[in-house]
Amino acid sequence: MFERLTVTVAQMRELDRAAIRDYQIPALLLMENAGAGAARVIRASLGPSLDGGVLVVAGTGNNGGDGYVVARHLHNAGHEVAIAAAAAPASPEARCNHDIARALGVEILPLDEPARWPRAGVVVDALLGIGISGALRPPMAAAIEAILLLGEAGARVVAMDVPSGLDADTGRPATPTVRATITTTFGACKAGLVAELARPHVGELSVIDISLPRALLAPLAGGAR
Amino acid sequence: MFERLTVTVAQMRELDRAAIRDYQIPALLLMENAGAGAARVIRASLGPSLDGGVLVVAGTGNNGGDGYVVARHLHNAGHEVAIAAAAAPASPEARCNHDIARALGVEILPLDEPARWPRAGVVVDALLGIGISGALRPPMAAAIEAILLLGEAGARVVAMDVPSGLDADTGRPATPTVRATITTTFGACKAGLVAELARPHVGELSVIDISLPRALLAPLAGGAR
Repeated sequence: MFERLTVTVAQMRELDRAAIRDYQIPALLLMENAGAGAARVIRASLGPSLDGGVLVVAGTGNNGGDGYVVARHLHNAGHEVAIAAAAAPASPEARCNHDIARALGVEILPLDEPARWPRAGVVVDALLGIGISGALRPPMAAAIEAILLLGEAGARVVAMDVPSGLDADTGRPATPTVRATITTTFGACKAGLVAELARPHVGELSVIDISLPRALLAPLAGGAR
Repeated sequence: MFERLTVTVAQMRELDRAAIRDYQIPALLLMENAGAGAARVIRASLGPSLDGGVLVVAGTGNNGGDGYVVARHLHNAGHEVAIAAAAAPASPEARCNHDIARALGVEILPLDEPARWPRAGVVVDALLGIGISGALRPPMAAAIEAILLLGEAGARVVAMDVPSGLDADTGRPATPTVRATITTTFGACKAGLVAELARPHVGELSVIDISLPRALLAPLAGGAR
């Protein structure tokens, strides 16, 4: 309904906050809709590449949590899935989904040893979300470099919310920044994703309904609906 | 992946229990996938009828909880939605989704006053799930009668999990039993839904993936996959 709306990072944070605080929507439920929606897009768009296996590269934040949800849905759909994960997840929701993926038997490898990552036809970039700004810390930069190499070797790369390294407000890419085949963005499109200089990084853009109340989105959409 | 599997009520209860207990999958998350999936089927199949508005008829159990999730997703998608609800929901997950629907401003009417129910192009039967057996209590029978009347007047009826009144093991209909245009069944098809005597009540059958672990479903599927 609000596919053409774009929001700033500050607006997106307020949307999430209001959904959780004013409408009592559990954050776990928003995360589930995000990851399940991304998994549907991947299955609909990248079927043949899925036969080469899936590698989810997960950060410690909620972006990583979205990645664990994608990993679960693709595993349940019968695909070979592995996860390269940073340290323990930082939020209860991300931890919950990490624990489910582990209980399912999805292999979880260390983020900082890309040489050990398995081959994959599809790489899910769930490293960094809309929260980042400024220079990348070295382990993050190294993981992004590894994702870029997999993409150059032929893997399809699907970014969760924004390609890691991209400034979600301005679209300015950090050095390095993921180059996605598809970016699935959650709840509403971020302004930076449609900026001209973001284009080589974003790929095909898909906005996923995560069940944000329409009463929160409508005032932002104005005439753009 | 397991679309052709059929399970008994006892097997389905054990699947839910094992998903929650052995894999730490929150029941809220299974309910969200059920309701979001049903809302997607409704939007894909019954588009024009949605313009006549949606009435969700919700029981007190988790079947009602699935209905509240459908109500939220259809409301957010821009449709006119009202709910006819029995007394307060019995489980924390159903209550959570009841409270979100109320916070969204979805109108909630009493179940036992069908004369006050609004007109609707789509009626969601979220009254009774797989748990029932034996004779229906009078308020449930009256609500089913009211749904049957709406169906006879032209509304499309979508059953959550099983048409209310139908025995999910045998397919035997109680008096009365809902007649659905579509039945969206959750996690795995129930044996009774494919029984010959259930046919006039089930309508088109759609199995919704609620994120049950494939390791739980695979042993039940045997050669039927």
